[in-house]
Amino acid sequence: MTRKELIVQIKKKQSFLCIGLDTDIEKVPNHLLKLEDPVFEFNKQIIDMTKDFCVAYKPNIAFYESIGVNGWISLQKTLDYIPEDIFTIADAKRGDIGNTSNMYAKAFFENMNFDSITVAPYMGSDSITPFLEFENKWAIVLALTSNVGGFDFQTIKSENEKAFFEEILETSQKWGTIENMMYVVGATRAEQFIQIRNIIPNHFLLVPGVGVQGGNLRQVARYGMNSDCGLLVNSSRGIIYKGKGKGFAEKARQEAQRLQQEMTMLLSEKGI
Amino acid sequence: MTRKELIVQIKKKQSFLCIGLDTDIEKVPNHLLKLEDPVFEFNKQIIDMTKDFCVAYKPNIAFYESIGVNGWISLQKTLDYIPEDIFTIADAKRGDIGNTSNMYAKAFFENMNFDSITVAPYMGSDSITPFLEFENKWAIVLALTSNVGGFDFQTIKSENEKAFFEEILETSQKWGTIENMMYVVGATRAEQFIQIRNIIPNHFLLVPGVGVQGGNLRQVARYGMNSDCGLLVNSSRGIIYKGKGKGFAEKARQEAQRLQQEMTMLLSEKGI
Repeated sequence: MTRKELIVQIKKKQSFLCIGLDTDIEKVPNHLLKLEDPVFEFNKQIIDMTKDFCVAYKPNIAFYESIGVNGWISLQKTLDYIPEDIFTIADAKRGDIGNTSNMYAKAFFENMNFDSITVAPYMGSDSITPFLEFENKWAIVLALTSNVGGFDFQTIKSENEKAFFEEILETSQKWGTIENMMYVVGATRAEQFIQIRNIIPNHFLLVPGVGVQGGNLRQVARYGMNSDCGLLVNSSRGIIYKGKGKGFAEKARQEAQRLQQEMTMLLSEKGI
Repeated sequence: MTRKELIVQIKKKQSFLCIGLDTDIEKVPNHLLKLEDPVFEFNKQIIDMTKDFCVAYKPNIAFYESIGVNGWISLQKTLDYIPEDIFTIADAKRGDIGNTSNMYAKAFFENMNFDSITVAPYMGSDSITPFLEFENKWAIVLALTSNVGGFDFQTIKSENEKAFFEEILETSQKWGTIENMMYVVGATRAEQFIQIRNIIPNHFLLVPGVGVQGGNLRQVARYGMNSDCGLLVNSSRGIIYKGKGKGFAEKARQEAQRLQQEMTMLLSEKGI
């Protein structure tokens, strides 16, 4: 999917919601466990009930990988089931030397046809550039993450008085364009969006952490939104596990709609 | 496998060689392609011919992931085929927030029974510690990598005048012990082993880059070896693609043996 197409979807749906499909077999409602592929069945019902309110789905690859070959089959079926006009993100945090990153790119862009993949920047240019060589595909680079450990290294100051995540933003943006790179920016520190937008005013940001991790949507929009919206805000557990038992998908729908309505207001305040 | 058991193997085989199973279906000799599982068949012959000379095998997960479900089946069969007294490394460069890293740990330690996994440190403590909670399993943390992009961020100086990889070594060693953590240290910069051994004198180091990436074994041993050896030196393409056609496994054996003989000499110089 191109940047232009993504922006069209955001305007049409009046939403910049990304739903994280962190589907844990241990949290799938009992009534689905007797089916042949409970993980896919769970995702299918979530997608059916939420697709009107989101512009992206983000399967968390670890959850599928953890159940072995069957997990990969459930993931492929899920991906095939997502409507074509919804952006897909493989939340995989991959990254290795050039020839190896190229293999990961093939896995997610050719074999599985994801639109994008999250990537870890520590190994530098040749760990990221192989992902940028696929047409209409995106690398989403970790910049500032919203977990506790995010403070261990990302905010260390360099001798140039820049936080380490700023060094990554400055250097990495030269590898690609706003048409094929986004950044992961955690939502627990909304004021840092100002710093980040100074360096990368035009890139899309994937913002995890609204929901269980505790971000604030209005703050994120205030400091992070640009004139193309430029945000994909994710909620995973806060939506897909909102309800339990047979009504889980209906509860997920209500929560997705609630967030979409909040987003509509924030977009209209910006005239988008 | 415990640290003690690994050291026993190193002494017994007089080798600290790790063989990287970066098995690329496009490089598998033609005569294997008509078999049901060419990737496994390739690995099986490599293992048969090299197992006497190495103490570890390191499948590069990207190469298996890139061919989809069949790749994961080949990987599982390969892992099952590796003799129990040889240390196994999932070269996967995983790492994410706590609950997600825990899923990756389950994937590689429970589902697949690897002894260890390589992990990326950028997301900090909670991205690594879930891997340290499994008995007799290891996290191998990226510190200094031997690729071109390794210079982009890893060697940036912090305001404390430490290179970023030194910040990672200092902080991360508190998360585990020498019994469950190793570090990836690239071999193209042997003089940096002095710096590294000042910070972590006792940890095992996984050293890629001897072979195609151009490291020098004697230099690595000189600056990196400690009294327990403390090194696993990897060669992937330099061994498994040494020969072409039907004689590929024999050529791999010769190259593995050549390296093992060099290692025997280096170990004996240290009295190990």
